[in-house]
Amino acid sequence: MFDVVFVEPESPGNVGFMARAMKNFGLNRLVLINPCHIGEEAQCHAMHAQDVLENCKTYPSLSQFLEETGIDFKVGTTGTAGGSYNVHRIAVTPEKLTDSINLDSKVALIFGREGDGLTNHEIDLCDVVVTIPTSNDYPIMNISHAAAVIFYELYKKVKLYPIGDVRESSRQEREDITRYMDQILGDLDYPPHKHQTTLTIFRRILGRAFITGREAHTMKGVFRKIKDRMIKDHVKDK
Amino acid sequence: MFDVVFVEPESPGNVGFMARAMKNFGLNRLVLINPCHIGEEAQCHAMHAQDVLENCKTYPSLSQFLEETGIDFKVGTTGTAGGSYNVHRIAVTPEKLTDSINLDSKVALIFGREGDGLTNHEIDLCDVVVTIPTSNDYPIMNISHAAAVIFYELYKKVKLYPIGDVRESSRQEREDITRYMDQILGDLDYPPHKHQTTLTIFRRILGRAFITGREAHTMKGVFRKIKDRMIKDHVKDK
Repeated sequence: MFDVVFVEPESPGNVGFMARAMKNFGLNRLVLINPCHIGEEAQCHAMHAQDVLENCKTYPSLSQFLEETGIDFKVGTTGTAGGSYNVHRIAVTPEKLTDSINLDSKVALIFGREGDGLTNHEIDLCDVVVTIPTSNDYPIMNISHAAAVIFYELYKKVKLYPIGDVRESSRQEREDITRYMDQILGDLDYPPHKHQTTLTIFRRILGRAFITGREAHTMKGVFRKIKDRMIKDHVKDK
Repeated sequence: MFDVVFVEPESPGNVGFMARAMKNFGLNRLVLINPCHIGEEAQCHAMHAQDVLENCKTYPSLSQFLEETGIDFKVGTTGTAGGSYNVHRIAVTPEKLTDSINLDSKVALIFGREGDGLTNHEIDLCDVVVTIPTSNDYPIMNISHAAAVIFYELYKKVKLYPIGDVRESSRQEREDITRYMDQILGDLDYPPHKHQTTLTIFRRILGRAFITGREAHTMKGVFRKIKDRMIKDHVKDK
């Protein structure tokens, strides 16, 4: 169970964006610590995540929230990872966080103020600090962008929903298509080495193309028809 | 080389957010297709990515951009992946995209209108379509959030910059700490089975804790001191 905690948000728009990003990734428990006024602008940015905003809980301080709720694992976030010599802010990547997190425990994902992030004191309350690898030219992300990336990485682990109802093609299905191409190349009287090279290239392309079952079915039909037609015409010519 | 193409953006704020997310992940070539007016609101949301906004290029249509520039690989994006029976929109995840992309080629990452995304015609111009796995309850992400997630996933592949100057601890460093704990447990006269179980738990905790070299150094010092002190006191007691 995940609580998303936003400490002293300064802009209602960002609270709305945060709510939307949460709902996009199946999260719905928003906690605001001593927030700015949450009005129409937050609702506008939340779009279809009004329920997340309406059900959010408010606490006067992060330490009070942590004392009153039985959080098992506190994850801080920072845009300024410390390097080796700022021990408060030694941070892991979202991927490493996801590897280590126990989805059955009560987890708080804690985001800081838009301008200043979490204080060292707040960071010290956390069990782990996470940061997103970014360009040295401009490392600081918008808070809701950073949240979306972390939610996305966690959601990949949860994997509650596959994308649509797509089934990937099987190796056999791709081989069936390649076999038709083999017969087609044979009928084209390609010299053997060119035949083999071409077939290999074709097979590789199919392999790299993430073909779905449906697409494989269609391609198989097409190449079977091409092959049938060519062989028929070939026989006719003779 | 990556061009980030935003087709008919409707809100200047989103163009600014897009520029910021780009710069966060080391991207700087923004292309706008028939955009809304880009003024102060875009600049405000771009924060420290003004250069990305200033250097952006504008084209009247996606097809004209693709004709005039030698893009090798066109990546469309969609929030409504098609499932098996909308063949236009059969999509891969950002991870799969990243696996397959050739970083030496000229790639266009193409994002559609905030409201309606890319048209089927525009999607058909693409070599691959990418979508982010999201909750069925609210699958449609804010455009700049979606862009940030895709940029993040690509950036992980590029891996131009490590996080800060952090070096992970070596196995040997963690074992050094564990050896001190072993001696400490011996001095505590733990029964052998309890000694072994406790040591195993300790070793596991160190292994899961993503300890850096600096942290390992510190911990080693602490446990060495504990051990020295205990053994000294023990000798004194006798």
